[in-house]
Amino acid sequence: MSPANGLLEPGSGRASGVADDAALLAAMVRVEVGWLRALASVGAINPDDAEMAAAAVSSLDVDLVRLRADTEAAGNPVVPLVQLLRDSVREPRVSTLIHRGLTSQDVLDTALVLLARDALTRIREDLAAAARALGQLAQTHRGTVMAGRTLTQYAVPITFGLKASQWLSGVLDALEQVEDVLDRLPVQCGGAGGTLSLVAEVAGDPVAVARAFADELALVWPGLPWHTTRTPVTRLGDALVGACDAVGVVATDVALLSRPEIAEVREGAVAGRGGSSTMPHKRNPVLSVLVRSAALQAPLLGAQLHLAAGQAVDERPDGAWHSEWPALRRLLELTVTATSQAAELASGLEVDAVVMQARVVAAADSLLAERGGGGTPQDYLGATGQFVDHVLARLPKDGPRHG
Amino acid sequence: MSPANGLLEPGSGRASGVADDAALLAAMVRVEVGWLRALASVGAINPDDAEMAAAAVSSLDVDLVRLRADTEAAGNPVVPLVQLLRDSVREPRVSTLIHRGLTSQDVLDTALVLLARDALTRIREDLAAAARALGQLAQTHRGTVMAGRTLTQYAVPITFGLKASQWLSGVLDALEQVEDVLDRLPVQCGGAGGTLSLVAEVAGDPVAVARAFADELALVWPGLPWHTTRTPVTRLGDALVGACDAVGVVATDVALLSRPEIAEVREGAVAGRGGSSTMPHKRNPVLSVLVRSAALQAPLLGAQLHLAAGQAVDERPDGAWHSEWPALRRLLELTVTATSQAAELASGLEVDAVVMQARVVAAADSLLAERGGGGTPQDYLGATGQFVDHVLARLPKDGPRHG
Amino acid sequence: MSPANGLLEPGSGRASGVADDAALLAAMVRVEVGWLRALASVGAINPDDAEMAAAAVSSLDVDLVRLRADTEAAGNPVVPLVQLLRDSVREPRVSTLIHRGLTSQDVLDTALVLLARDALTRIREDLAAAARALGQLAQTHRGTVMAGRTLTQYAVPITFGLKASQWLSGVLDALEQVEDVLDRLPVQCGGAGGTLSLVAEVAGDPVAVARAFADELALVWPGLPWHTTRTPVTRLGDALVGACDAVGVVATDVALLSRPEIAEVREGAVAGRGGSSTMPHKRNPVLSVLVRSAALQAPLLGAQLHLAAGQAVDERPDGAWHSEWPALRRLLELTVTATSQAAELASGLEVDAVVMQARVVAAADSLLAERGGGGTPQDYLGATGQFVDHVLARLPKDGPRHG
Amino acid sequence: MSPANGLLEPGSGRASGVADDAALLAAMVRVEVGWLRALASVGAINPDDAEMAAAAVSSLDVDLVRLRADTEAAGNPVVPLVQLLRDSVREPRVSTLIHRGLTSQDVLDTALVLLARDALTRIREDLAAAARALGQLAQTHRGTVMAGRTLTQYAVPITFGLKASQWLSGVLDALEQVEDVLDRLPVQCGGAGGTLSLVAEVAGDPVAVARAFADELALVWPGLPWHTTRTPVTRLGDALVGACDAVGVVATDVALLSRPEIAEVREGAVAGRGGSSTMPHKRNPVLSVLVRSAALQAPLLGAQLHLAAGQAVDERPDGAWHSEWPALRRLLELTVTATSQAAELASGLEVDAVVMQARVVAAADSLLAERGGGGTPQDYLGATGQFVDHVLARLPKDGPRHG
Repeated sequence: MSPANGLLEPGSGRASGVADDAALLAAMVRVEVGWLRALASVGAINPDDAEMAAAAVSSLDVDLVRLRADTEAAGNPVVPLVQLLRDSVREPRVSTLIHRGLTSQDVLDTALVLLARDALTRIREDLAAAARALGQLAQTHRGTVMAGRTLTQYAVPITFGLKASQWLSGVLDALEQVEDVLDRLPVQCGGAGGTLSLVAEVAGDPVAVARAFADELALVWPGLPWHTTRTPVTRLGDALVGACDAVGVVATDVALLSRPEIAEVREGAVAGRGGSSTMPHKRNPVLSVLVRSAALQAPLLGAQLHLAAGQAVDERPDGAWHSEWPALRRLLELTVTATSQAAELASGLEVDAVVMQARVVAAADSLLAERGGGGTPQDYLGATGQFVDHVLARLPKDGPRHG
Repeated sequence: MSPANGLLEPGSGRASGVADDAALLAAMVRVEVGWLRALASVGAINPDDAEMAAAAVSSLDVDLVRLRADTEAAGNPVVPLVQLLRDSVREPRVSTLIHRGLTSQDVLDTALVLLARDALTRIREDLAAAARALGQLAQTHRGTVMAGRTLTQYAVPITFGLKASQWLSGVLDALEQVEDVLDRLPVQCGGAGGTLSLVAEVAGDPVAVARAFADELALVWPGLPWHTTRTPVTRLGDALVGACDAVGVVATDVALLSRPEIAEVREGAVAGRGGSSTMPHKRNPVLSVLVRSAALQAPLLGAQLHLAAGQAVDERPDGAWHSEWPALRRLLELTVTATSQAAELASGLEVDAVVMQARVVAAADSLLAERGGGGTPQDYLGATGQFVDHVLARLPKDGPRHG
Repeated sequence: MSPANGLLEPGSGRASGVADDAALLAAMVRVEVGWLRALASVGAINPDDAEMAAAAVSSLDVDLVRLRADTEAAGNPVVPLVQLLRDSVREPRVSTLIHRGLTSQDVLDTALVLLARDALTRIREDLAAAARALGQLAQTHRGTVMAGRTLTQYAVPITFGLKASQWLSGVLDALEQVEDVLDRLPVQCGGAGGTLSLVAEVAGDPVAVARAFADELALVWPGLPWHTTRTPVTRLGDALVGACDAVGVVATDVALLSRPEIAEVREGAVAGRGGSSTMPHKRNPVLSVLVRSAALQAPLLGAQLHLAAGQAVDERPDGAWHSEWPALRRLLELTVTATSQAAELASGLEVDAVVMQARVVAAADSLLAERGGGGTPQDYLGATGQFVDHVLARLPKDGPRHG
Repeated sequence: MSPANGLLEPGSGRASGVADDAALLAAMVRVEVGWLRALASVGAINPDDAEMAAAAVSSLDVDLVRLRADTEAAGNPVVPLVQLLRDSVREPRVSTLIHRGLTSQDVLDTALVLLARDALTRIREDLAAAARALGQLAQTHRGTVMAGRTLTQYAVPITFGLKASQWLSGVLDALEQVEDVLDRLPVQCGGAGGTLSLVAEVAGDPVAVARAFADELALVWPGLPWHTTRTPVTRLGDALVGACDAVGVVATDVALLSRPEIAEVREGAVAGRGGSSTMPHKRNPVLSVLVRSAALQAPLLGAQLHLAAGQAVDERPDGAWHSEWPALRRLLELTVTATSQAAELASGLEVDAVVMQARVVAAADSLLAERGGGGTPQDYLGATGQFVDHVLARLPKDGPRHG
């Protein structure tokens, strides 16, 4: 199933459930349940009460349409959700435990981190799959000579293995950054003004509750809240943009090299893909076009997060925080989609070594001009093989680090 | 009803139906019907056939979930939609008339223009409503002296009427730009490569069909297609961003002036609005916060459209066009929401002239320092009244230009 | 002479004197002189005094290095400049007339408008020159058939005349927007808090002085100051970005079509241009590369101006205004450079109709697939000629509107 | 001395020599010299020849004005520079050794990395200085109670120590990222097409030369060139933007809290700073305004680098690379300036604990509303002290890691 706005985001079915309202709602409920259990785990509330409340809110069937409509009054979805959650527990003593000591931003930030974790896990798998496929291409075509091109014109000979290695190098950089972010995803926990004051009243040691909260959700407790210190958000955004950059280069090269005048690669054939509404013969490089499009979009979404970060005034800001949400959601969905498309693109890529070789022969004069002529393109490959080996050695041996 | 992703876009219920998938689908169908009638109107196809096809496609119940899933294969939603539309007409002779001579981009661009027209119409009304409210404030507070502030510090005295007039001036600029764009919204019509070649085969004079097509949809025929000349899109984007700029300034000022230490204005009280999930006393300036947030987002969405415009290679581009869609949709919804919120904000704004006056008295020394002291702030208002009058004279007399 | 940072902005010598510090300094002095004469023209100060001061400040040799160093203390260059200007007039009675009633923002905004006027005048000329060259290409190649391409693949036949017309259409749109902005460039004039209070004390009717000020500088008096209503800045920015969009498309197409595998056009040969530091044979499409690069940069610079516009708090803002300056300067220089390069690119473009024709023949099956085969590409051009004629009819008959 | 365009970049004298043309020229020459020595170190050329060439090019007085003018023809400054360098060596045998095997991008990328290293070193020192000052504030004001504010309204009590700790937390995050980038700055070395083919002809083992080149410049050899894998550039950009984010939050808070109606902090007094051109009494928070302005600009500059990264087609791209240069230069200068200003701002910040206390007393009802009233703000500080301690423990003990 595609996200509800999928008509204008082709392929976003690949990001199904990543960051839509239903996923966000489930994550927010999970956060509230985690909080109840954290309170119980330090003895601040009765564990049976916590589980009673947890059971009630977890089984609640929230009317998303209504919840959306109620979101404006408080400026965020947590306030009306908490009301619904509390209403779902008949026992007032228990009902008031829900969200006790938290602020809206604790819940929404943490819920978005949970969504980000799922998204990053998918992205990591797709980047790893792309890396494997590119690694295979690099090995297979270690000796496949092709024309190198710079500033649109013929330069010196390269191998397709080197090109695949360059793509792979970028993908591995992105993978490294994604894993780094995954290791550090933090819980948000500060209460109304980032002091955990009410938690302290309820639970004695508020930091112990924060740690327990992080444990419940398998997130990191960063030592203090980050309501206005948005490094976790910008670090996440930078990693997502980085992933789009890396696959964007692959797509840009593939779109170019699959032009009919060049025809050195083409996307794998998939029944029904790449068709035109009017020209039946066409086989458009659809995945490349879509991934390229993602790489044109991601940077501005990442910039939106940084803009908010620098404007995070007071103990919780007056608009900057709100401006993060649509950009972050979109960036998550876009990157999940683009990396999935890129993994498929890399896996299915068809390389036409014959065309490459014919072009190298035809363009040999240009390709050897630097050398002053003489010899053959195959002789003039410099460190190409060493570069391929260097990148291949970076390939994860047995899948990504995390289970 | 809020858009399907409304939880992270508080107030986006105000943009309900503006640009969601259902609205887009309806617009695309409307475009295909318009095309059939245009073909009939010039005698290229039988009017009865056209109406039979129009009736079939108009009453078709399209499965949006399925359509979204099918969107990736062609890279856009038009290809699978056309298939569905054709399948809905039993008569093959008639079925093949659907979309005859068009390309996907003709349909999608034109459908987005139709959505834009509806959105702009709402925006125009809300900007006009905001303008009326600000005009009222300017008149009422023509003589309400308050502290002027520059670079955060007290400057010279102004009136609240002048401040409202400055806000109004920006809103009127935005309104002018919106009306200009509304007057020029074009139909897209070029066929596979922007030549209308197939239309020429079907209809003789392809430009006559294009004109008829524009007439059917009450849009402008710009004389040639704009598949790669994206002025209509960037002009639209600039107007939308301009509207967010204009209301953003109002919101930024209101958010500041409603701080408790300043307390010179506050948003109108609305039951249940501005509450906190933990602090019952709070009355947050929610509309201002949300409108400010919009003004932080709109510029990057507008930039996305310009980026695409400069990259529109070939006869139809390889990713740039696709990168426009989510940005344009989001910018439409964001601007409809923000201008609606701003109209409400302006209409309900509470001005505390007593607090303003007390502050002017307390800060008189600073406010009169430029003058070298002497006199009273009321004496030192320069052209304030003339400026107010100038802006008020720009107010549309009896509502916006268009019906 | 290139701007002082020209090493990283190839071709920026074309924007020499457009917006560098020396040009800005001259413009600021011109503004202060215009103000003195405006005060004199309404009888607020003695005309001889005004001319004495004007003569002194106009002949002053300002130490730019020193002035730059002094700019931080006040946060803008006007404060230290005014001190220098006042110091340059020996007569204290006359010295104090300088800048009397103005604020820094009046001077800096107006000076930037003066720079913008000069830049826009150059841009208009270069867009007009590009338009003439493209018009010539459109006429010459009205019948030169070439392959149309969509999503990187062959589509239907077009003519090179149509492609040139599409380019021209965008350039004419940009030209129209530039001329619209040129017609409306306003003077900034509000005094410390946008009230002209001090001017009123000095001159009686402050608005009369503002009008006279505008007349002195041949700018428009917009009826009130725009310290926080930044439409003039964003309108300017939108026009500049629009110009870069228009020439960016040309450059992107030329860079593609001059690839050796396509080779349908190439940049005019210029001795020494397009060389490589290591490959002597290369002829890189340097102008296209640089203009493309400009089109990738302009949108974010324009977005910067809009961001500032929505944050223009108080009577003069606390950082937003300052964030406009480098973006506006850079956008002016970039657009002057890119449009100049584009005019040269268009004028010198070499079109290889033989290659185009050979490709059309070779690819005829693909190009005619929509039609169902049959005929020749020459037969399948639809409204191509009409579109060319439509755009040619938009060409200004005898140069741009303004002298 | 300020950069040549300093009038519109107040305080940019702080970034003197960081990235202006003279600094870039020196860095490019240093790169060429490093290359000669690298060739010599592996025995590819005679060490005496290398030193003869190095001496000649190092002492050459390059005419920057001329070099700028010559930059357009090749699209970058390296091509004309290499010509000048070669011309400076009389012995043709030695002259041709210069730049032997390199491509323009090797030189320019590496030169920009050298500039980045110097800039990052300054930034690291200024972030560390800011961190020390903020740490001091956090310790001093560990118990200074003040009003917490969220969404512009009073929330719960905090301490100024906590606020300073939040600022510090962001600065330490930025510092960590800067140090990480500093550790990984790579040399660029690939030759015409990223294969080191010519180097292989000259030197046998091209990778050994690349390693030696990196050693000469004390940079990292990343194992292969990164002409189209732009992680080093985007990683650098992200770190610079992150630094601006971190100091931007400080500045935004200070600008707000130094408003006269709040008056809880103010920038340290510096003779002549913060003045107005017309209002002699004013003391504008100039540093805050300028740092805020930087935080509004940096995100779009960083986005520019990511945009280029995703478009890096072929073996060296057709405009994307060129679009990096002005953005990177500007981002380097902006961040050096902003972090320097922020260090000064933090060091000089005046905190008015008396005003804070008075406000806490006056607003006690609001500040204690969450608690249900009762007690005093001093009693309701939750984990504030623990948070302060957590951040203080992150402070580097004895200065930054790198000498």
